[in-house]
Amino acid sequence: MQSQYCVSLASIQKAHRVIHDLVHQTPVLTNSTLDKRAERKIFLKCELFQKTGSFKIRGALNAVASLSERRQNGKEVPAVVTHSSGNHGQALALAAQMQGIPSYVVVPRNAPACKKAAILEYGAHIVECEPSDQSRMETVSKVIAETKGIQIHSNQDPLVIAGQGTIGLEILQQVPDVQAVVVPVGGGGMVSGITVAIKTQRPQVKVYAAEPEKADDCYQSKQSGCLTPNRYAPVTIADGVKTSIGEKTWPIIRDLVDDVFTVSEEEIKRATRLMWERAKLVIEPTAGVGIAVVLSPRFRNLPGNLRNVCVVLCGGNVDLDSLEWLKVTE
Amino acid sequence: MQSQYCVSLASIQKAHRVIHDLVHQTPVLTNSTLDKRAERKIFLKCELFQKTGSFKIRGALNAVASLSERRQNGKEVPAVVTHSSGNHGQALALAAQMQGIPSYVVVPRNAPACKKAAILEYGAHIVECEPSDQSRMETVSKVIAETKGIQIHSNQDPLVIAGQGTIGLEILQQVPDVQAVVVPVGGGGMVSGITVAIKTQRPQVKVYAAEPEKADDCYQSKQSGCLTPNRYAPVTIADGVKTSIGEKTWPIIRDLVDDVFTVSEEEIKRATRLMWERAKLVIEPTAGVGIAVVLSPRFRNLPGNLRNVCVVLCGGNVDLDSLEWLKVTE
Repeated sequence: MQSQYCVSLASIQKAHRVIHDLVHQTPVLTNSTLDKRAERKIFLKCELFQKTGSFKIRGALNAVASLSERRQNGKEVPAVVTHSSGNHGQALALAAQMQGIPSYVVVPRNAPACKKAAILEYGAHIVECEPSDQSRMETVSKVIAETKGIQIHSNQDPLVIAGQGTIGLEILQQVPDVQAVVVPVGGGGMVSGITVAIKTQRPQVKVYAAEPEKADDCYQSKQSGCLTPNRYAPVTIADGVKTSIGEKTWPIIRDLVDDVFTVSEEEIKRATRLMWERAKLVIEPTAGVGIAVVLSPRFRNLPGNLRNVCVVLCGGNVDLDSLEWLKVTE
Repeated sequence: MQSQYCVSLASIQKAHRVIHDLVHQTPVLTNSTLDKRAERKIFLKCELFQKTGSFKIRGALNAVASLSERRQNGKEVPAVVTHSSGNHGQALALAAQMQGIPSYVVVPRNAPACKKAAILEYGAHIVECEPSDQSRMETVSKVIAETKGIQIHSNQDPLVIAGQGTIGLEILQQVPDVQAVVVPVGGGGMVSGITVAIKTQRPQVKVYAAEPEKADDCYQSKQSGCLTPNRYAPVTIADGVKTSIGEKTWPIIRDLVDDVFTVSEEEIKRATRLMWERAKLVIEPTAGVGIAVVLSPRFRNLPGNLRNVCVVLCGGNVDLDSLEWLKVTE
């Protein structure tokens, strides 16, 4: 089944062997308040506890550790390059540091200082660009030309997608009676990897993508049957899923993801706050998208025999100096 | 050794059998940033994930579930009573609800609305008093007289102390090579129970109490060798440990606790923030006291072969609408 896709169960299992001793097998927690409100048993796959505070290290590390397979003209790859002011930037920086290879992260010059500091802390070189797509792409090309490095894309690189898929392998082990998995979707690397990991082994387990209404390219694509990127730069509190799904992830999402659920900004905020308040977990709003979905009216209308639902809490990187958004009026 | 104390290993083991199926065996997590800064391997016993958001349910539930042993003139105890606007109030309320017995919690009328709401949510009757020791004690006596209930003290009741001691049993199981345990101390119920659980089985494991400088009655008592309660109501951000240790907990602390470490308000804030930011754990400042201790200069001067240290993260109940204190300047 998988030969038509950019990742297979075998490539995900290989990724698991590659990264297994270098990343955390994150715990699965439960919370009775959440169960009560969702009227199901909700299992929380805690990638917020992952190294660098998000799942992104899995894919980045698999890509960097597999560089020997990407030798250029028989030569070692001298550096890795990416553009990201978010979790992938930190993850690639740490992955490169762990593997002893230079990394270059292109960051818009107006990115928050705390994000740049985190990337620097993991030993990456930061290259600033103007805050535009064009400047970003030009800068990446320039860095690649100068360093002879290769780009590790945050969500369309097959090795990255295979790395994220290891979350799916762990979920099947840690929650053997899982009936559905809910995964936030931005570029779709995580949901694609998890979907292949799960559907190849347990096709009856549902995989649902979770998306903000305000960045609903995945929902629109599934509705129309055609890859439909966001037409404008989305404005959502869930900053980890502003990216649109792409050419590599779309076929997997189109064929194998069971459904896409969208939620409003208010639902995301409330869900995030509920996790902080009741589950005592510092999740980022992007992880709140999955929680908002299981609490949403449409999800609650799913059959009651869909009992055991695992939500991937993808990350916990928030700026504690700007928590005004956490104050919702209940 | 234990006959001179109000709890024994046997009473703690019995408590464990009583509450085992009703509370969470909370997980033990680790965090590499914390390890690096403390220069030891730090194990986090996550009682913030416990039912009601703190360890207090262990003691409260053991006390309430053991009420049949406290029958009054052969009659069932008709109600339980306590005074607390904090974690013990919520815990006793839930324990009573689980055991199907009425509970009355005396709360100062100026206590935050969110605290009262949590107690009410667990089905307790709230009885308001004036915000003074005298009014509180008079009100408790009046409620006891009217309901014929009995008081469950939050930290001097032997069944409560035995319940908290179950944390010590779990630590020895979950961290078999633990060399030291750090426990915040207020009234001393938790540290006493844990100390007896550990010292009776593994006397070579150190038990350290952690206390704010601004509420250092335990430290002063150990220094002088005499029970020395706080002379004034302490003003500390660690509101769970404002209480002084008492007659039941002092002998255990005096004889068996290895040392007491105190930390400043600034150290508590920074430690709490570090846990939110890096470990992604919503701990309350009282739990931050233990983290602040392992990061403090005095603790870092302990021998380096004291490698594996377990810190009890006692709770995670904070008011998310008042997080100004979390903003420290680094």
